[in-house]
Amino acid sequence: MRIDGKAYRTIWEAQDGGAVEVIDQTLLPHRFAVRRLDSTAAVADAISSMVVRGAPLIGATAAYGLAIAMTEDASDRHLATAYDTLYRTRPTAVNLRWALDRLRSGLGGLAPSQRPAAAWAMAAEICEDDVETCRRIGEAGAGLIEAVAARKPGETVQVLTHCNAGWLATVDWGTALAPIYMAHDRGVKVHVWVDETRPRNQGASLTAFELGAHGVAHTVIADNVGGHLMQHGKVDLCIVGTDRTTSRGDVCNKIGTYLKALAAHANAVPFYVALPHSTIDWTLRDGVREIPIEERDATELTHMTGRLPDGSLATVEIVAPGSPAANFAFDVTPAHLVTALITDRGVCAASFEGLASLFPDEARGAHGPGES
Amino acid sequence: MRIDGKAYRTIWEAQDGGAVEVIDQTLLPHRFAVRRLDSTAAVADAISSMVVRGAPLIGATAAYGLAIAMTEDASDRHLATAYDTLYRTRPTAVNLRWALDRLRSGLGGLAPSQRPAAAWAMAAEICEDDVETCRRIGEAGAGLIEAVAARKPGETVQVLTHCNAGWLATVDWGTALAPIYMAHDRGVKVHVWVDETRPRNQGASLTAFELGAHGVAHTVIADNVGGHLMQHGKVDLCIVGTDRTTSRGDVCNKIGTYLKALAAHANAVPFYVALPHSTIDWTLRDGVREIPIEERDATELTHMTGRLPDGSLATVEIVAPGSPAANFAFDVTPAHLVTALITDRGVCAASFEGLASLFPDEARGAHGPGES
Repeated sequence: MRIDGKAYRTIWEAQDGGAVEVIDQTLLPHRFAVRRLDSTAAVADAISSMVVRGAPLIGATAAYGLAIAMTEDASDRHLATAYDTLYRTRPTAVNLRWALDRLRSGLGGLAPSQRPAAAWAMAAEICEDDVETCRRIGEAGAGLIEAVAARKPGETVQVLTHCNAGWLATVDWGTALAPIYMAHDRGVKVHVWVDETRPRNQGASLTAFELGAHGVAHTVIADNVGGHLMQHGKVDLCIVGTDRTTSRGDVCNKIGTYLKALAAHANAVPFYVALPHSTIDWTLRDGVREIPIEERDATELTHMTGRLPDGSLATVEIVAPGSPAANFAFDVTPAHLVTALITDRGVCAASFEGLASLFPDEARGAHGPGES
Repeated sequence: MRIDGKAYRTIWEAQDGGAVEVIDQTLLPHRFAVRRLDSTAAVADAISSMVVRGAPLIGATAAYGLAIAMTEDASDRHLATAYDTLYRTRPTAVNLRWALDRLRSGLGGLAPSQRPAAAWAMAAEICEDDVETCRRIGEAGAGLIEAVAARKPGETVQVLTHCNAGWLATVDWGTALAPIYMAHDRGVKVHVWVDETRPRNQGASLTAFELGAHGVAHTVIADNVGGHLMQHGKVDLCIVGTDRTTSRGDVCNKIGTYLKALAAHANAVPFYVALPHSTIDWTLRDGVREIPIEERDATELTHMTGRLPDGSLATVEIVAPGSPAANFAFDVTPAHLVTALITDRGVCAASFEGLASLFPDEARGAHGPGES
């Protein structure tokens, strides 16, 4: 997507080779800066310090980390060491392990002399695959936005989103925001209500930044506002992402998603969830009962970082002194509140039957809806 | 209520007479300080600068302002001047005008020599009336909490509240929090989930401060969390306040209240709204259609004030540079989502019939439910 008119991805190969460049996301939205990663250690540090974040982007960055490692030293020993170093940066990130395993198994059978070129090619392929996955989500979802636009010619389509499921979390396009970018680029008039997304404020910082940089009209609102807007006809559709999707279409996403889905349902506003098929967990049925919800450090809620008037950054404590705080990071939206799922294979109902129609092979291996 | 074991109201007469003392709420929750108001000008400044806030407390403070004015100079001219000075501080506050009118009409027929004593007595009466109103709300609502406690002996009753409808907004007790204080003081084990309440954070600051100071167990949460908690049986009941209540039981309260009511309804959690009967607007029927929602300055959302590590206060900007923001201050919760209203005359259904059963005189003058 674009930043001030220039096309960017979140990661790309440096022109002089042997290194990659990434957008330093620890500085967003306050400052835009590119960071060069030219060693295994630099890549590992970028992942662990969240210079890059978002599951797809972490996977792509780790893959390039192994490619850089092979340029440094293509021996078996260095391959094993670099794998460990990169894996330890964010050990719970599924995409990280998946990308590292894909490269390791591909490189294992090659002579050391062949490894560098093969590793760079495989990392590039992981990036291209991610871009293509997100582009297809965008293609599928843009049709939904265009259908609304066709019903109200000349008017702006009002979309509400929660958290950041944008291109900054992927290599390009994003998931929930991909349909919005695609519709916007095709000339559809779109405006996005951006939930601030407390406590980490990914909406007010990352989503607002990337929509603004690409030129998409948007307005940041408190997480409390969406119900009021839907009650008054100011939202045509909601699109959010998901971290985990059950075989029956329940979605686990950033805390607060469920409240917006309830408001959408109560006010007959379509509520769409965009996802690459890799987030579907075919072993899960009942998301509310089966998905454990991570509790994170309360300081994410009690402290807030922002810009002082002189442009420098500061962190202030905002909760009453001594008051305890709790920080639940995700919630589960039951499938019956989800109008449809937008996947890289098209749009489907949020149900086992819906998912099975797009992913018959995976569905065949999963528990069917009738089993208990 | 208590602060560190000592009983306080939000306003009281100074021991040496001729002045009142108030809690300086501009410093909360970061610092606790008492401010002495000993002139009409000092009272006017305290109201306009929000040293005191909350409709009932503003009314009580303005009444004491006229009492102080009569001590300064009991002439007709000074009565008129002081009335104007105090009225201009927050001209849209209904209680402010009501309190000032009550004193002015009471004092008008008296000789100047009688006015100071009469004015102080009338101001004290306004305070006592407010305390009694809130105490009755507490009495009515405490029964609801005790009923839950009786159903789960030995366990803690889990209450969720939004914004600040506590004693800091009134003279004592508060509205939504009055039942909680009363149940707590009677020995019922209560824990309160306190919604942060973006964008002004009245929950994380004022509600958390007053519950903590009085010794009521509580936990601050992001506004996004309540749905998840209710979905998992972690909330026994919700109690919130209301700024305006229609004749059919719709309630207009701080933005985000509607989303919590939807979650309570979806999860069969009772959703109560506490109110002094002065908030009932008998001329209104359909709150969603008839009540205009105030849009406030976006800087309340884009900027955040808190404590730096050295204890000093600072304000940081938290939204992506250049991104627009909108700040809707209230929303309307339709009566069908409200389990019951907790009033100073008891608990009733959120409907015209329910309100008419407690307030037959007022209801008789209002539009009935059958008229259109």
